[in-house]
Amino acid sequence: MIIDIHGHYTTAPPALGAWRDRQIASLDGSSAAPKPSELRIPDDEIRASIASNQLARMDERGIDLTVFSPRASFMAHHVGGFDTSREWATICNDLVARVVALFPDRFAGAGMLPQSPGVDPKTCLPELDRCVTELGFVAINLNPDPSGGHWTSPPLSDRHWYPLYERMVEHDIPAMIHVSTSCNPCFHTTGSHYLNADTTAFMQCLTADLFADFPTLRFVIPHGGGAVPYHWGRFRGLAQELKKPPLTEHLLKNVFFDTCVYHQPGIDLLTRVIPVENVLFASEMIGAVRGIDPETGHAFDDTRRYVDAAATLSAADRRRIYEGNARRVYPRLDARLASRAAAGARP
Amino acid sequence: MIIDIHGHYTTAPPALGAWRDRQIASLDGSSAAPKPSELRIPDDEIRASIASNQLARMDERGIDLTVFSPRASFMAHHVGGFDTSREWATICNDLVARVVALFPDRFAGAGMLPQSPGVDPKTCLPELDRCVTELGFVAINLNPDPSGGHWTSPPLSDRHWYPLYERMVEHDIPAMIHVSTSCNPCFHTTGSHYLNADTTAFMQCLTADLFADFPTLRFVIPHGGGAVPYHWGRFRGLAQELKKPPLTEHLLKNVFFDTCVYHQPGIDLLTRVIPVENVLFASEMIGAVRGIDPETGHAFDDTRRYVDAAATLSAADRRRIYEGNARRVYPRLDARLASRAAAGARP
Repeated sequence: MIIDIHGHYTTAPPALGAWRDRQIASLDGSSAAPKPSELRIPDDEIRASIASNQLARMDERGIDLTVFSPRASFMAHHVGGFDTSREWATICNDLVARVVALFPDRFAGAGMLPQSPGVDPKTCLPELDRCVTELGFVAINLNPDPSGGHWTSPPLSDRHWYPLYERMVEHDIPAMIHVSTSCNPCFHTTGSHYLNADTTAFMQCLTADLFADFPTLRFVIPHGGGAVPYHWGRFRGLAQELKKPPLTEHLLKNVFFDTCVYHQPGIDLLTRVIPVENVLFASEMIGAVRGIDPETGHAFDDTRRYVDAAATLSAADRRRIYEGNARRVYPRLDARLASRAAAGARP
Repeated sequence: MIIDIHGHYTTAPPALGAWRDRQIASLDGSSAAPKPSELRIPDDEIRASIASNQLARMDERGIDLTVFSPRASFMAHHVGGFDTSREWATICNDLVARVVALFPDRFAGAGMLPQSPGVDPKTCLPELDRCVTELGFVAINLNPDPSGGHWTSPPLSDRHWYPLYERMVEHDIPAMIHVSTSCNPCFHTTGSHYLNADTTAFMQCLTADLFADFPTLRFVIPHGGGAVPYHWGRFRGLAQELKKPPLTEHLLKNVFFDTCVYHQPGIDLLTRVIPVENVLFASEMIGAVRGIDPETGHAFDDTRRYVDAAATLSAADRRRIYEGNARRVYPRLDARLASRAAAGARP
C-alpha cells in the first residue's frame, strides 16, 4: 500500500476560517469571542470538502492512506495566548477526527498542539493525550517556533521540550517538526520559513545529544528535510568537527525525512543521499504549491511520480518508502492498519 | 583560469581577534576602547598566514585567484553600534587590502560593510565607496540580518536597502548576500543560519520586483543557494502561484549561486537544476567545514573535485563556472585581470 504521511486539512469548509476570524477579532476586546459550540459543520460538508479534493487526488495518484492533520499555516500559535490556542487546537483536531471517522480506511489523524510563545509546553499535554487516547491519532505536529518567525523558544534539544518528549515516548508516537505562518516579514511562510525551520530543527538535534536521553523519540522533518540532504556533506563535516558520531548513528535512528520535494532532481538527491529507511513518502498535497509544472505537465506536488522515477531505488526500496518505514515510525498507524485488515477493511 | 569567488580571511593573525576582544570588552564602559592604530600586524605575519593556508590549498587544488573578504562570522554586526562596526569594518577591509597587495595575482578584495541593526544602510556608503575607489575591491558582502539571527531588518526588496543598491549599480559591483554569527541560540551559525539566510534572501527577491527597479543589480547567493536548488520545483511553483514570470526571467539575470556545497550529489543537483551561467565556482575553504570526508579521503571543501566530476557539465560549461561567469558578474575583477594580463602578470 501507499501511505502519504504529510497531509493537512487545507480544504476545510469556510465556516472554520470564519470562526477563527471571529476568535482573532475578539482578542482586542472589541467583540465577544465565539464559543466552540458555535462552529457547526455538517458531515456532508466535511465529506464533500475531502471527496472532491484530497480523496480525489489520492485516487488519481494511487495513494491508499494519508496521515492527516490540521492546516499547518492556520495553527498560527503566535496569535493570542494559551487559551486561544487551546480552543483553536481542540476545534481543529476534532475536525480532523471527523474526517478520519468519515473515511476510516483513507485517513489517520495527527494532532496540532495548543502551543503559545513563552508558555510551558507542559500545557500541551492534555491535548496531546486527548489526541492519542480519545481521538485515536497516530502522531503530532510540533512547532519549534510558536512565535511565528521570531524564534524565541529554546532549541528542540532544550529541557524546555522534555515533558512533550516523555509523553510522546509513552504513547510511542512520532512528531513532525512543522512551523506555522510566519509573522516576520523577512520570511515567506512556505517559501522560506518552512524550509528554514526544517534545517534549523535538524541542526538543533545535530549539536546536542537529545536522542541519548530519548533513544526511542522520533522526529519527522518535512519538506524533504529543508536544506539538509542537499548539504549532507556539510552536515557530515560539521558533525565530525563537533566530535559527534557519524550522522547515521547520531541522528538517523531518530530523524526521518519526508518526500515533499517538488521536482525530480530533488527526489533523486534525497534518495541518493539519505538511507532508504529514513525516507517516508509524502506529498503535502493541496498545500504550498498547487499548480501544474509546465515542464512536466503534472502537478508539482504529485511526488509519487518522482519517487517512482528515482533511478537509484529498487522495488523493495520503494515499498519501504511507501509503506514499511511509515508503519515502523508510526506504530499506532501500523496497529490501526493491522486491526482494520483483520476486520476485513480495504485494502 | 580558475577563480574562487568565496574566500574569507579566516586565518588572520591572532592580533586581530585580540583587538576585537578589547573593542567588545570596552562596550560596557569598563575599559577603554582600543584605537585602530594599536593593531599592528607586520607584512610577514600576513604573508605567512596566507601562504601556509589559503595559498597552499589554492596551489594544491589549482585555483588561480580567490575573491577574498573579511571573515564572515567575525563581522558580527549585532555587536555594539554603528561606530563599533565602522572601526571594525575599516580594520578588516584594510587587512584584506594588504593581503591583495601582497599577492596581487592570487587575490581580489571584497569588502564588509559597517552594518548595525536598526541603523540606516546609508551609513555604509562611505565604507562601500572606500572599498571600491581606494582599496580596489571588486564586490561587497551584504548582511541581510545585521541583528545576528533575530531578523529585525526589512526584506532585501525593501526601499530601506535601496541606497546601497544605487551605489552598487554605480560602481558596477555585485554583493554576496552573507550573514554573520548567529546570536540566537536557535540557529547554529554555519549549520543553519547561513543556509537559512540564503533561502530567505532568494525568497525575498522572488516575492518582490526588485530587479525591475535595478535591472543591473547582481546578488550572489552563497552556500549553493541554501535550500533553493534542492527545492527548485517548489520555487518555480511558488513563483507561478504568485503570478511572477518564470524564475529564469524573474531572477536569474540578477541572482547567482556559488558552488559551496560539500559533497558530489549536491553539486550534481546544483549543476543539473540551475542554468550554467548562474553558477560560480567557490569553495569558502578553511571555513565552516575544514575536515577530510572519510567517504572520499579528500577535504569536504575541495569543491573543485565535485565540479570536475559533475557529469552533466561540458568542458565549456566548466570554463564558464570556473572563470567566465565570475568575470561577467564581477566586472571590476575582469578589468583587474585584463589589466594585469596586459602588464604581463601571471597567469
